[in-house]
Amino acid sequence: MPNILIRRATADDAAAFVRLFSAPRAMWGTLQVPYTSEEARRRRLVDAPEGTYPLVAEVDGEVVGQLTLHTNPTRPRRAHVGVLGMAVRDDWHGRGVGTALMAACLDLADNWLNLTRVELEVYTDNEPAIRLYTKFGFEIEGTLRRYAYRDGQWADAYIMARLRESPAP
Amino acid sequence: MPNILIRRATADDAAAFVRLFSAPRAMWGTLQVPYTSEEARRRRLVDAPEGTYPLVAEVDGEVVGQLTLHTNPTRPRRAHVGVLGMAVRDDWHGRGVGTALMAACLDLADNWLNLTRVELEVYTDNEPAIRLYTKFGFEIEGTLRRYAYRDGQWADAYIMARLRESPAP
Repeated sequence: MPNILIRRATADDAAAFVRLFSAPRAMWGTLQVPYTSEEARRRRLVDAPEGTYPLVAEVDGEVVGQLTLHTNPTRPRRAHVGVLGMAVRDDWHGRGVGTALMAACLDLADNWLNLTRVELEVYTDNEPAIRLYTKFGFEIEGTLRRYAYRDGQWADAYIMARLRESPAP
Repeated sequence: MPNILIRRATADDAAAFVRLFSAPRAMWGTLQVPYTSEEARRRRLVDAPEGTYPLVAEVDGEVVGQLTLHTNPTRPRRAHVGVLGMAVRDDWHGRGVGTALMAACLDLADNWLNLTRVELEVYTDNEPAIRLYTKFGFEIEGTLRRYAYRDGQWADAYIMARLRESPAP
């Protein structure tokens, strides 16, 4: 296995995000749009609201995947919930990058943020992603019809969530 | 039936929102938090992002309900989707306010914004709300476990959506 470093993304990762999200499979699996500018990527990294945790996976100094966890610091009644989105660079699929990102995210969610519900949305035909999420304890809660437009067609998505019991204070 | 006027909310509705959302049943049915200030309500109305449509229902000059439709002007692949949240003042339940708000929202969504998927989340035990949504063609797509904290307990929610066929250009 390659040596995968997980760290927080910085504004200087904007160019790497352009490369990551411009690949056909990454676009297919996310809500990203072709030809998004590096400047737009940079702004999103800089302007991330409080409670957003953008992580990247780095191998030999190159960003090969990303995962962002969004939390609800200003919404007390959903303060226990995190929502995540992730993508692995097309040429790095199947090499443990997604697993490393998800393990880091759930360590953050479980052991530091004390989230008890982590959720995500995934296209119903994205089998490798669904396999990864299932491995980490996510379960399908429903099917969102006509969730997004993708490569000329409407695509459905599952909403999946992973619940966790927190130790009593 | 009372004469119900639907109009866009303005910053001057902040005090009415405090009253609406401070009532026990409105809090029970939403994600609102007790003791939210009028200033916070005003800020949310003023700072509503592009593509947000905050509507109120007014009877005899008083705000008796609200519905906000959120759209995705900066996310092309979900530009066909709207998400709504609504609440009727406790003393105005069962008098057509929800119906008037929803009818106005769906006229906006269908006939002007050309949304083809409108979605919402509703607590699984909020029967009057589910009845209203079902009447307007919303269908349950899934159950979100431990969706929010409500009156000392964790509550589940349905995700419901209403799909519509748009005329071909």
